[in-house]
Amino acid sequence: MSIADAQTVSHGPCSNAAEWKSQLESASGLPESYSLTKTLVFKPKTPKSQTAVLIVLVALEDTNTPSSLIAKAVDVKEPRMAAADAVQTALGVEPANVSPLSITKENATAVQVVLDSRLVESTSKIAVHPSKSDVTVFISGAEIKTHLEGTGVKVTVVEFGLASVQAASKEVAKASPVKVSTKKDSEIHGAELIGITTRKEADFSNWYQQVLTKGDMLDYYDISGCYILKPWSYAVWEKVQRWFDDNIKTIGVENCYFPMFVSAKVLEREKDHIEGFAPEVAWVTKAGSTDLEEHIAIRPTSETVMYPYYAKWIRSHRDLPLKLNQWNSVVRWEFKHPQPFLRTREFLWQEGHTAHMTRKMAEEEVMQILDWYSGVYSELLAVPTIKGKKTEKEKFAGGLFTTTVEGYIPTTGRGIQGATSHCLGQNFSKMFNIIVENPDWKEGDPEEDKKVYVWQNSWGLSTRVIGVCVMIHGDNKGLVLPPKVAAHQVVIVPCGLTARTTDEERKTLLEGVSEIAVTLQKAGIRVKADTRETYSPGYKFNDWELKGVPLRIEYGPKDIVKKQVLSVRRDNGEKTPIPLDGLASTIQTLLDTIQSDLYIKAKKSFDEHTKIITKWEEFTPALNAKNVILIPHCDREECEDEIKERSKGTNEGGEPEDAKAPSMGAKSLCIPFEQPTGEHAIVPGTTKCTQCGENAKHYTLFGRSY
Amino acid sequence: MSIADAQTVSHGPCSNAAEWKSQLESASGLPESYSLTKTLVFKPKTPKSQTAVLIVLVALEDTNTPSSLIAKAVDVKEPRMAAADAVQTALGVEPANVSPLSITKENATAVQVVLDSRLVESTSKIAVHPSKSDVTVFISGAEIKTHLEGTGVKVTVVEFGLASVQAASKEVAKASPVKVSTKKDSEIHGAELIGITTRKEADFSNWYQQVLTKGDMLDYYDISGCYILKPWSYAVWEKVQRWFDDNIKTIGVENCYFPMFVSAKVLEREKDHIEGFAPEVAWVTKAGSTDLEEHIAIRPTSETVMYPYYAKWIRSHRDLPLKLNQWNSVVRWEFKHPQPFLRTREFLWQEGHTAHMTRKMAEEEVMQILDWYSGVYSELLAVPTIKGKKTEKEKFAGGLFTTTVEGYIPTTGRGIQGATSHCLGQNFSKMFNIIVENPDWKEGDPEEDKKVYVWQNSWGLSTRVIGVCVMIHGDNKGLVLPPKVAAHQVVIVPCGLTARTTDEERKTLLEGVSEIAVTLQKAGIRVKADTRETYSPGYKFNDWELKGVPLRIEYGPKDIVKKQVLSVRRDNGEKTPIPLDGLASTIQTLLDTIQSDLYIKAKKSFDEHTKIITKWEEFTPALNAKNVILIPHCDREECEDEIKERSKGTNEGGEPEDAKAPSMGAKSLCIPFEQPTGEHAIVPGTTKCTQCGENAKHYTLFGRSY
Ligand SMILES: [Zn+2]
Ligand SMILES: [Zn+2]
Repeated sequence: MSIADAQTVSHGPCSNAAEWKSQLESASGLPESYSLTKTLVFKPKTPKSQTAVLIVLVALEDTNTPSSLIAKAVDVKEPRMAAADAVQTALGVEPANVSPLSITKENATAVQVVLDSRLVESTSKIAVHPSKSDVTVFISGAEIKTHLEGTGVKVTVVEFGLASVQAASKEVAKASPVKVSTKKDSEIHGAELIGITTRKEADFSNWYQQVLTKGDMLDYYDISGCYILKPWSYAVWEKVQRWFDDNIKTIGVENCYFPMFVSAKVLEREKDHIEGFAPEVAWVTKAGSTDLEEHIAIRPTSETVMYPYYAKWIRSHRDLPLKLNQWNSVVRWEFKHPQPFLRTREFLWQEGHTAHMTRKMAEEEVMQILDWYSGVYSELLAVPTIKGKKTEKEKFAGGLFTTTVEGYIPTTGRGIQGATSHCLGQNFSKMFNIIVENPDWKEGDPEEDKKVYVWQNSWGLSTRVIGVCVMIHGDNKGLVLPPKVAAHQVVIVPCGLTARTTDEERKTLLEGVSEIAVTLQKAGIRVKADTRETYSPGYKFNDWELKGVPLRIEYGPKDIVKKQVLSVRRDNGEKTPIPLDGLASTIQTLLDTIQSDLYIKAKKSFDEHTKIITKWEEFTPALNAKNVILIPHCDREECEDEIKERSKGTNEGGEPEDAKAPSMGAKSLCIPFEQPTGEHAIVPGTTKCTQCGENAKHYTLFGRSY
Repeated sequence: MSIADAQTVSHGPCSNAAEWKSQLESASGLPESYSLTKTLVFKPKTPKSQTAVLIVLVALEDTNTPSSLIAKAVDVKEPRMAAADAVQTALGVEPANVSPLSITKENATAVQVVLDSRLVESTSKIAVHPSKSDVTVFISGAEIKTHLEGTGVKVTVVEFGLASVQAASKEVAKASPVKVSTKKDSEIHGAELIGITTRKEADFSNWYQQVLTKGDMLDYYDISGCYILKPWSYAVWEKVQRWFDDNIKTIGVENCYFPMFVSAKVLEREKDHIEGFAPEVAWVTKAGSTDLEEHIAIRPTSETVMYPYYAKWIRSHRDLPLKLNQWNSVVRWEFKHPQPFLRTREFLWQEGHTAHMTRKMAEEEVMQILDWYSGVYSELLAVPTIKGKKTEKEKFAGGLFTTTVEGYIPTTGRGIQGATSHCLGQNFSKMFNIIVENPDWKEGDPEEDKKVYVWQNSWGLSTRVIGVCVMIHGDNKGLVLPPKVAAHQVVIVPCGLTARTTDEERKTLLEGVSEIAVTLQKAGIRVKADTRETYSPGYKFNDWELKGVPLRIEYGPKDIVKKQVLSVRRDNGEKTPIPLDGLASTIQTLLDTIQSDLYIKAKKSFDEHTKIITKWEEFTPALNAKNVILIPHCDREECEDEIKERSKGTNEGGEPEDAKAPSMGAKSLCIPFEQPTGEHAIVPGTTKCTQCGENAKHYTLFGRSY
């Protein structure tokens, strides 16, 4: 197939990548998956006596291509964006119209090409303008390379980085300083605001990365597994913090701070517990140039950090309950593939650690906290979860039992642990000797009842909540933030200003916008008036859609006349005019509706994909159809192991194999507190385990999981 | 001198250490500095066939003496508190009356003694009851040892730890679990609530430790230089956080979170800057059992962590200003002697990092932030500070200039840096290449003006504020917390309940207490009703005084009749009856008065101890008289070095030497923005530097400093 045969689409002209993306979105007949490109022309520093050979960079739009790396790759000095006339002279086109197809046998000696290895290797189609901005052809990266090589131009393939965004930040940190600021401002902003180029359904992992970075939630960091929480995501965390913190304070939990460092001896005190964490513990062995005599761990969690002091502080039943909480960060140096918010080497969380006189008190608190974890998801993040108990196999190491809220990611059909509230029983108190005298003990009672080992809980909720929220609500335009956690709930965009607008009209409009903002703000609505002058309304619409602001308000000259605004919902695109009269309360109602609609939609999806299965042969197919599965289960750990093994999608036992099914086996997510009833109810001694045929004890929820 | 000659004081009987302390406080003729002791009798596990040799522990009251260590020291099993009859049999006195002096040649074989090494080595006098609780003798630790050895009893001196509280926590963490809970609850509580045993003026460092640990602010940790922030101090931090965070958000600062880890390369990017931190950087070199290929630092501050991303994110002047802040912890592995809150290896703080288009904008922000730092001290902590600029010698390494708020600790006469707000200028932006195009650049302007390196600030405020607040306001009864930051502003203690009180009267009184609490709470006052049943009002008074609650309300049967409460101010002990009618507003006014009186008192002290000195020979004597000193100064770094050297208190240049003067030299604290005027004003070319005689540029504040 030659380039002449390539799929070609005509559309409106576009002066930057955002416009390009938006033009393509309204076009038809596109490939299922494609990537935008950028073609930039650089001029290296060249002695005056010589003619510069320009460098044409052809790269995927989202590859970070610092000029320092270009300089290194082709051994030139200080490459800068080439002036328009130099580009015209060399390639016969304007800089804006340069594409890989601008290079021909005729002009091949005037330039050299730096080609992004990601583009060459991409399995998606590559979108390029063949000549002008109103036409796009879709060809493969290999075809572009073949074409270029056919012209005789010097081509250097450069590996800017393995993954777009990862590379970007690595470069920032490792390479010599990135030179981006010599581009014209307009170009930079054009290049910066890029919509999501991968569809959520097509490549979820890439979509997730893009939605987080382009939605301004997070940036990648030069240390693998660590991420920067930008203000846009940190604001979500602040909302979660405030809500949860206010709640736990009502039951007397107090905040405190324990050091991040733990000595090896203390860390290793509880054996079962530490076995779970040991492989992931980060060790400080040096300070300045001094080797430390004893290596010091960074807390992976604080049980062993805190409990020696609980033994010291709790001297009497009158010191109970002791309820402490910390908002801190912990470090688990996982070697598995990291994923922003879901699996990171350092993460922010809260960890509550409490001690009680009786098991009953401890258990009541465990459930109360679990309710609030469920509330963080349902009330704030509009995410439904299933509450339940972890199986023995999956519970917190060293604890008595673990309760959990489990979520569901529809796109991948995988379950995700939301937060866990553990009853530690007396295991840690025995290990750390946290004892009080029993105030009810009387002469004559058994001697061993005189002392009571306290009953303990620990419970934690992390920034993972942000990842779950993004994965569930985000769409192909970017983030969708629930109103309760969005930093801005409403953005107001002044519209309808043209070259013919008078200064007076402009002033009136902006005053109107400002009044609307003040009105909403006074009503407690988090509102942003986007009055940036150099951006078009269309640019702003894209910008805030990408960032997931729940509601957009458009306000233009016609609205002034009609005394209304136009509201546009981020979640479903619905446009509704709203009268200025009573605006704040209408908007508040609309925000509440958005919040609740997001929840309802996610709940429906979770419900529809929670299947009750009683025949094993239906198990893996249901899993492959993106379901989580409730089966009557025997509660045996070995049976869980077998389920995991048998559901890996290999052809075993005659169940049909599906080439597309992920290879991961299913694990137990929880034993839901709310068990199926009626016809489905387990009949003890009669209902059998779906996998092994032994007597079933509970319905257990299984699924592929994060 | 024999024990018979020892200083003896009679007083009322006391059944626990708190009462003892309180009895001594009202006695006269005490030594300037003394320590309370505890004498406890243990019985080790002994085969039934043998007679147990009891163990008499003689220790300073605040030495942590876990029974596990006693067991180890004298090689016995499971020592437990001895029963009263066993003590009576062995020593002929009741357990409560046992003292080192109870041991005589006659009973020396029935017991053995474990003697606290701190007690033996103490330079303070040691307070012991010679026979009963209503008499105290003051003798030296050495005398106690001599006495004991004279009886022939077996004496084992045990080093429970180097410093009382430090030892306590080390034991908790390192030794086998501490057994305290087998004591009777009443005894534990008696032993636990101990007033401050060192006077603030006598041994400030020890006083500070005691006030923090006994006031429940902090506990020592088994890793040196790390401390546990208990809820009582963390609550102060939360108040500071909320106030400052609300303020910075009004100028558009946003919170975010950057990883705690920094790669070596990035850390070392800015040379001047890193030189300041390198010796104190903690390095992670291992994860689990895997050695990391590249060592990873824990941030000592985040300039080099964040700025590579500023270079990436700031692409246009429209991205300015960028104003980010983090609430996090940083690690500086200092090898100097650590001090809670003031010099710790990990500490909590906020660090703001901002980038601006112009120097003017940056400087305005630096000053705005400094005002808020000053506000944290003056408004919340009731601590006066002096605002000024650091000298070149003392400024932040790598920055352009540093502004600071400097405080003063009257007891030691030392200055203390409160918080710093740095203008970094363009140094970091040049290093990290943070550039934007100049929007005002026109064709014809110099080419080099086309790009602008951004102007940057960084500013930080740490938990040090808590230490300063404690040092300034605390007294010999414990903490004194300013109302604005106290977790509880008011504590209500029901009084006047006796054995003759009827259930009905008790009920009425407690309902009254509850009503008062609700009334105050509704008015936004943070109130605690201390209705604990097992404690006496006196115990509660001591307890809350130790913890520094600003206002105590006593409410008893007589108050019910008079429709009033009795208020007692923590800061000055003033007692005032307040009618129930209008209670909340009267209390609020009183809290405001306490807040302002604390500030006024501290301000008066600071003012009185800020001396203008123009003759060098007066400099060191003024320093030794606990002053900070303003001198006309030449602004030269070498002159500062000389001042430091010459003020060390050694006899040099003829100035009088004072044996009591600390050896530390004075350093410059700041060049105050508010310079002396009138007769003191510097006349350029005429006024000379007090130290070197060169022309003076500014008044500079010098002092011994933390
Ligand atoms: Zn089974
Ligand atoms: Zn001088």
